[in-house]
Amino acid sequence: MSKNDGNTVIRQLIANVREFLRERDWEKYHNPKDLAESICIESAELLQLFQWVKHEETEQFKNDPSKVQRIKEELADVLIYCLSMANTLNIDLTTAILEKIEHNKKKYPKERYKGKAWLNT
Amino acid sequence: MSKNDGNTVIRQLIANVREFLRERDWEKYHNPKDLAESICIESAELLQLFQWVKHEETEQFKNDPSKVQRIKEELADVLIYCLSMANTLNIDLTTAILEKIEHNKKKYPKERYKGKAWLNT
Amino acid sequence: MSKNDGNTVIRQLIANVREFLRERDWEKYHNPKDLAESICIESAELLQLFQWVKHEETEQFKNDPSKVQRIKEELADVLIYCLSMANTLNIDLTTAILEKIEHNKKKYPKERYKGKAWLNT
Amino acid sequence: MSKNDGNTVIRQLIANVREFLRERDWEKYHNPKDLAESICIESAELLQLFQWVKHEETEQFKNDPSKVQRIKEELADVLIYCLSMANTLNIDLTTAILEKIEHNKKKYPKERYKGKAWLNT
Repeated sequence: MSKNDGNTVIRQLIANVREFLRERDWEKYHNPKDLAESICIESAELLQLFQWVKHEETEQFKNDPSKVQRIKEELADVLIYCLSMANTLNIDLTTAILEKIEHNKKKYPKERYKGKAWLNT
Repeated sequence: MSKNDGNTVIRQLIANVREFLRERDWEKYHNPKDLAESICIESAELLQLFQWVKHEETEQFKNDPSKVQRIKEELADVLIYCLSMANTLNIDLTTAILEKIEHNKKKYPKERYKGKAWLNT
Repeated sequence: MSKNDGNTVIRQLIANVREFLRERDWEKYHNPKDLAESICIESAELLQLFQWVKHEETEQFKNDPSKVQRIKEELADVLIYCLSMANTLNIDLTTAILEKIEHNKKKYPKERYKGKAWLNT
Repeated sequence: MSKNDGNTVIRQLIANVREFLRERDWEKYHNPKDLAESICIESAELLQLFQWVKHEETEQFKNDPSKVQRIKEELADVLIYCLSMANTLNIDLTTAILEKIEHNKKKYPKERYKGKAWLNT
């Protein structure tokens, strides 16, 4: 059965990234500072797909397979570097994500924030 | 049993993010353009943890729990927006990641690239 | 007479940045890699002022002095690091900017591109 | 006499950018949100020149004309979008930069900070 979001754990994806790096003896380049730079670089390439585009246009993107394919490719680049960062620093990403969601639930209680904009400072 | 990278599928994490957004009626703000902006903004906050830091210093970060905790928090912010982007556009992240790793394996065959730097243009 | 865009050359601004750094013996931290990271970090702080904001709202920003003030402050942070990069590498920014505009004029001849979107790949 | 950092005021550079945009009827695309995105995108392209590079290597960049040329081109892209942002919002960049330097002088008094790292939080 092919792997997808319904049957694959993050540990497996980290293992796939680590195998790719070890086959090429590239883990030594993947120090945290350069990985953080790489995550920024790839997220900017993802953002570039939306440069000059109006919000109304982006609502049509999900109906355009070639647009969705490009977004998948750039998102994958961002995520692969995040998985490598987790590998380098022994970080459990599931725990990190669920703890942050819990933190956000307390910071933005649903009773007070329902429908109101998430204010950025 | 608590959830971690060894027992949690990505679909569950996307569901957690979606639940958080729906409880607050916030899915309407999470259009792809603003999500791409958010991924950039959060990846820059992650990069800020390494600003002015030499590579040798970053090698010690994994032994410093307070540094690792800050990195976990910023990585989580990047990943939560990526999960929201997958939710908005019905993207299977596992498929996207594994396809990109396969693409990279062909682009950088291990026989030719073992030990040599991954050149960026 | 106070300094402004009508009477100040870039060389003066680079000198102001260099003086600030030398008084604090900080030029040694301003190597090109960390400066490039800093320009990314500050540009993301500028972008954060527009996170979740619709285009129609941003058209009102120029009439809101507090919004313009915040944008000025973040733009200044981006520019100060660019000026420091020019100082570190002896780059003439005026020449770089004018050469790039000339390059863009040839790449996007006005006869063909008038009114049509600047396509990003 | 050719224009350079010693004889060109910023107002002239803003005028050059504005002329380029008006000849192509492109000012309408240059709203502040998309300009902020563009500054991020270009700063990541600049950062990419330093991806995987050690600090010691970057110290040699200033002696390598092809490296300096690439840095000039990417810096120019960042700066052109900053000049366009100033044009769109009627911001005086010289004033913004000098005010920020004054603010930083008070925040980091030279008597206390000489030689000590500029700590980022």
